[in-house]
Amino acid sequence: MGGKRDNYTTSELRHDWLADRWVIVAPQRSERPEDYSHIVSIINDSTDCPFCCGHEYETPGALASYHSEGVNGSSNWQVRVVPNKFPAVNGVKYREDSAHGPSTPHFSITPASESEPARDSVGIDLYLRRELTGGHEVIIESPHHIQSLSQLERKTVALVFRAYRDRLAYWRRERNSCYAVVFKNVGYDAGASLAHTHSQLIATDILPTEVQRHVSRMEEYERIEGTCLFCRMVAEEAEQGVRIVEQTASFTAFCPFASRLPSMVNIVPNQHSSSFESLDEVALEELAWLTHRLIRRIERCYPKVAYNFVIHTAPIGKQESSAFHWRMELFPRITKVAGFEWGSDCYINPMSPESAAALLRTVAL
Amino acid sequence: MGGKRDNYTTSELRHDWLADRWVIVAPQRSERPEDYSHIVSIINDSTDCPFCCGHEYETPGALASYHSEGVNGSSNWQVRVVPNKFPAVNGVKYREDSAHGPSTPHFSITPASESEPARDSVGIDLYLRRELTGGHEVIIESPHHIQSLSQLERKTVALVFRAYRDRLAYWRRERNSCYAVVFKNVGYDAGASLAHTHSQLIATDILPTEVQRHVSRMEEYERIEGTCLFCRMVAEEAEQGVRIVEQTASFTAFCPFASRLPSMVNIVPNQHSSSFESLDEVALEELAWLTHRLIRRIERCYPKVAYNFVIHTAPIGKQESSAFHWRMELFPRITKVAGFEWGSDCYINPMSPESAAALLRTVAL
Repeated sequence: MGGKRDNYTTSELRHDWLADRWVIVAPQRSERPEDYSHIVSIINDSTDCPFCCGHEYETPGALASYHSEGVNGSSNWQVRVVPNKFPAVNGVKYREDSAHGPSTPHFSITPASESEPARDSVGIDLYLRRELTGGHEVIIESPHHIQSLSQLERKTVALVFRAYRDRLAYWRRERNSCYAVVFKNVGYDAGASLAHTHSQLIATDILPTEVQRHVSRMEEYERIEGTCLFCRMVAEEAEQGVRIVEQTASFTAFCPFASRLPSMVNIVPNQHSSSFESLDEVALEELAWLTHRLIRRIERCYPKVAYNFVIHTAPIGKQESSAFHWRMELFPRITKVAGFEWGSDCYINPMSPESAAALLRTVAL
Repeated sequence: MGGKRDNYTTSELRHDWLADRWVIVAPQRSERPEDYSHIVSIINDSTDCPFCCGHEYETPGALASYHSEGVNGSSNWQVRVVPNKFPAVNGVKYREDSAHGPSTPHFSITPASESEPARDSVGIDLYLRRELTGGHEVIIESPHHIQSLSQLERKTVALVFRAYRDRLAYWRRERNSCYAVVFKNVGYDAGASLAHTHSQLIATDILPTEVQRHVSRMEEYERIEGTCLFCRMVAEEAEQGVRIVEQTASFTAFCPFASRLPSMVNIVPNQHSSSFESLDEVALEELAWLTHRLIRRIERCYPKVAYNFVIHTAPIGKQESSAFHWRMELFPRITKVAGFEWGSDCYINPMSPESAAALLRTVAL
């Protein structure tokens, strides 16, 4: 596991109220012997990389380009947003008001999505299918072949987060959007296929069931408690202190109480806010630099580790909810999803969040 | 991806009625370039392996031992069940009627679990925790250092499945049991830590929320449709044919319509049955050999692939339900759970189950 050993010696169940899911915290599991030595080698070098500067012709045309001095033309970019060449979502035509840069449609135009088909009127349909439309974009975070956001300069990280904000705002204005999410996969174990530092955005015309459930739980919490779940949690975490990794003027970074994975970090705005896109310039830069520091903390604890992050912003359209408190989740990929987790959706975490927070907090930056 | 290319070229949403979850089937994603070359090396050799014959002193004493001629003493075993030395669950004292072999308690005795604590009467408790008790056992499938169940002889595979049945039956009779699951992790990417072929059983005094939800959905289906969800599905799959991998007198093996992973296979008894433990001798041997063949099919398509299987039997005690239809899930670990899946619980599967079934069906055994 690397890092400090837990004091706990037996398993404990912890309840994740938002997801309504129990997690098994079992630190004694980290003592297990290990037969496997894991080696990942990167075969492609930068001369083959479609994300490097000089290879812009290998990707669809840019939806937006960012320079250090702000938003600008398409040459000498620092950050570049392009449609994914292998999209998971059937593309809709881009609007002419596309934030910045060219706005031609980059993948095949499909009809606007139909509304979710009703269940077969004579019973339950076990073979329900429908078309999926939306967008799948890649945020290329550097013209150079570097592999982690932690290697970017401060001002470039801010540009990356500005790109997230612009693109999420674009999809929030899109007629059929229900859901948009920004996420980052770094390394083989985190699901990346290309090594050049990048993030992705997927926007869909359907709200995933799990996200819908989270919205309902946040609304339920507000109804019962008269306050927001995450506003309460930020206050509680600050008071308890043991799971805090870092706090800034606008954000609290902590390891969640019922963490499914070792060293998972939640980054939550201190003041109630439903959408990431509503971040002002000052808070945006603060968040960008906090994220950079948190990734450096993780990389110091677990050298060359694969990691992900996900930005959870409020659903779009009729599912939008003021009870939603936006947040980021950042997590190294140290453990595997094994048979037990697949079978039960109950995770065994071999490191308590208190130990993880202590480890991440004390590492020298 | 390996194997036959899909005919589909756009993404499609498919609904998993049981889990109430949409899956994105996106075959065009399999065309993506790949920077990572994945190499896993096994460092321990068999001289270090605690599961090999001659090393029995390295594990807790056996709960059961099986010989080719049936159940027998503890020497010259073919299959051996021991408590996990690094359990995820705090152990309860084993009963004297423990199926076969010694029944001394093998890990610390903890008080019987208390009932689930009620929510804080003045509001919602965001920091709910409780003790977890039950059992965590290892089924060692061979005295020799082989690494996949597919390398076992026919009669030994049947012994392994008999061990599953005996141990699940043991936990079904245990006073505080709510849930017991048998699962198998093979290879680093599937979450295994030891290479020697083995399976595991975890029994808990709580029913995971997701399993509880599945039970409710099966009951709802029966209420609305007047028949069992999986009985209907077996009939439908047989009629449609395209997702069938293999059918025997007692079982149907098919790639599920809303498969979250490429080449996932469900193995379902053709006749309604709630618990795996109620299998008779003939069906047990049939299932053991069918599973062996299915793993060989997967290994032919994806050489040296990591894989998991999970046996979903009915919950225990007051959550037991006659609407439950037991099943097995078997899946190679080809894709990774990336940021999008973590954020949305919506899976992107780059291979349609129809293509996967065609591939698995046609491979030479």
